[in-house]
Amino acid sequence: MKIALLGFGNVGRGAYETLQLLPEIEVKCVLVRNVRPCGTSAVTADFSDILSDPEIELVADVMGGYEIARFYVLAALRAKKHVVSANKELLCKSFSELTSAAFENGVCLRYTACAGGGTPWLFNLERAARCGEIEALGGIMNGTTNFMLHAMEQSGIGFDEALKSAQSLGYVEAEPSADVDGRDAARKCAMSANLAFHTMLNEAEMNVEGIRRVRPCDIEFAKSRNCVLKLIARAHRANDAVNAYVEPRFVKASSQEAQVPGNYNLFTLEGKRLKRQSFFGQGAGMYPTGIAVAQDILDVARGSVKPQETVIAPQSVNNQSCAHRYYVRCGTQQPHEGLMELACERLVTAESYVYITKPVSVFAMHALAQTLRKADPRLFFAGMEEA
Amino acid sequence: MKIALLGFGNVGRGAYETLQLLPEIEVKCVLVRNVRPCGTSAVTADFSDILSDPEIELVADVMGGYEIARFYVLAALRAKKHVVSANKELLCKSFSELTSAAFENGVCLRYTACAGGGTPWLFNLERAARCGEIEALGGIMNGTTNFMLHAMEQSGIGFDEALKSAQSLGYVEAEPSADVDGRDAARKCAMSANLAFHTMLNEAEMNVEGIRRVRPCDIEFAKSRNCVLKLIARAHRANDAVNAYVEPRFVKASSQEAQVPGNYNLFTLEGKRLKRQSFFGQGAGMYPTGIAVAQDILDVARGSVKPQETVIAPQSVNNQSCAHRYYVRCGTQQPHEGLMELACERLVTAESYVYITKPVSVFAMHALAQTLRKADPRLFFAGMEEA
Repeated sequence: MKIALLGFGNVGRGAYETLQLLPEIEVKCVLVRNVRPCGTSAVTADFSDILSDPEIELVADVMGGYEIARFYVLAALRAKKHVVSANKELLCKSFSELTSAAFENGVCLRYTACAGGGTPWLFNLERAARCGEIEALGGIMNGTTNFMLHAMEQSGIGFDEALKSAQSLGYVEAEPSADVDGRDAARKCAMSANLAFHTMLNEAEMNVEGIRRVRPCDIEFAKSRNCVLKLIARAHRANDAVNAYVEPRFVKASSQEAQVPGNYNLFTLEGKRLKRQSFFGQGAGMYPTGIAVAQDILDVARGSVKPQETVIAPQSVNNQSCAHRYYVRCGTQQPHEGLMELACERLVTAESYVYITKPVSVFAMHALAQTLRKADPRLFFAGMEEA
Repeated sequence: MKIALLGFGNVGRGAYETLQLLPEIEVKCVLVRNVRPCGTSAVTADFSDILSDPEIELVADVMGGYEIARFYVLAALRAKKHVVSANKELLCKSFSELTSAAFENGVCLRYTACAGGGTPWLFNLERAARCGEIEALGGIMNGTTNFMLHAMEQSGIGFDEALKSAQSLGYVEAEPSADVDGRDAARKCAMSANLAFHTMLNEAEMNVEGIRRVRPCDIEFAKSRNCVLKLIARAHRANDAVNAYVEPRFVKASSQEAQVPGNYNLFTLEGKRLKRQSFFGQGAGMYPTGIAVAQDILDVARGSVKPQETVIAPQSVNNQSCAHRYYVRCGTQQPHEGLMELACERLVTAESYVYITKPVSVFAMHALAQTLRKADPRLFFAGMEEA
């Protein structure tokens, strides 16, 4: 099969090099803004060269961004070319539009590199979902923040230093907020839930808390309770809604999640009959993500996946029905109204003032934190796993 | 697609119930020795009813055993019916014969339930292997022994009590030696290596040590070194051979392997570019394994897998090129010749006499243990992970 790559950055090069091992795939053309040699393939800056080439049966979007990528991908689908995309933003924002366009034009749209990178998550999630109901999913879905929390845990460094370290290793963008504030994990969680539950979640309704306010004393507290602090995403079916949220959480030291080092990811699905399955691997990187793109291309080329109708229904997120205890560390030593009545334990040290709450709904805790931060902007909270 | 099940035990029923959810698959007939109702399908004790039915396009072997299963499966392949098998013994002993028969008759042979059960291991291993070289694989491949070691670690019970507990939960056969002596893990490891490396290993050449001689003091020693005792299988490419072995090992408490509870499994593959991927799940059980069989059937019915030639070359196992330190606990307090010169540490307590060796090849250590056991049959040894 002859294909075209849109973009030739890290992931594009990783995919390109992997595809060189596979004689059945030929990268006929690469689209780049500034024309330069890209392996042995033809190179163009004009997308219409690709769109009008009937030999090119598949277009792989490894370029990032939203508006232009959406334009190219829709045009490719309408020209009856299969599309493989590693573009999480595009897939999230335009999931319904793109899956419809693919189905209407009788071509495949594959995007398993969008969440998990080198961890074969979305692919296996989709596979598990076809043989019975998935009840819940979640895990460590962002490698950058896991790298930072792991570094803080191992070396006792603070947030700023951990962030610099992640930046120096190229794990994080110059503008780190999507990672650090949990939005990247939330996006992957929403994509996963949509695939598993056949829903279309509104990301804006998810409760999302990142790791920006974490301090070494929080990590120390986790250790004192035989726990590890991780950024955890979770989605599960409730009666007539879906619970879906991202928050820092004290996971038990004996859990699979606690042992995820550096920028690795761990994705878990749970089904009544299937029990628990977990997938561990690199969440990103030139080769891990590039290989995931190449796998999607191979699946289409070999006919292992077929054009399919994706039935999705808009579904509201409701986090009022899931509750657990919380650790809340205040930035001031003033008693916090609202928190006092929820607390079942209070710990005062020289540097921190901590409440442990009774079980509180995820919705209520995230809302309370937002209120309290008007007076105490450095307030940090984390979910606690029941012992 | 109309199919037949050979057998209706635990796994057969798990597969049957899962297939009821999938309207595209109809279980037309079930083969059982003693005819009894099996769901709503026709039932027969005569295999020729299935073989001669042109409507039945796929036969699923969920019956266990070797000779009869081999006869049925070969006959089905030659009658140009696809075969899905959960029969590890059959696949291991007759891998070459069965894959050839399938390819010659233009049908698929799938067997991903043979190793991993509810963990989608063989499927993902095969998938990873097509996009580049897999350098090593391994993990916790036997749920029964993991359950026993985990119970010993958690409750301080001895081997016999752990075995009884596993038997009472139905995790182990009345004759437990295949599990307890490591042969079941070795078989899964050989199957995995064959799939990943395109080889045909001679299982008899693998060094295999089980957990029959483990005592609470060994588990305590692991804890004192911040380790956990697990039964680990491992295979990796050496220059002109494959290292492949199973042995008890002290894994670091911070490893993924250390946190595998109960009868769960953890399978890992490593590639130069892919890095590490791990797969965690139930290793066995009615639904987990039944679902794996149903997944294979679906893949064939949907055309996601195609008949393929499996190129395999006989490959010798050579464990002389892989070395690490060992813990050796003697059953007597007599100095052991051969061991003295390898030891770099000696620990004597009231109940045990322990050597820690310098790095020794897996081949040499297993051979030495065999020799020493002539005088000291209760001698126990375990590999040690480098700190």
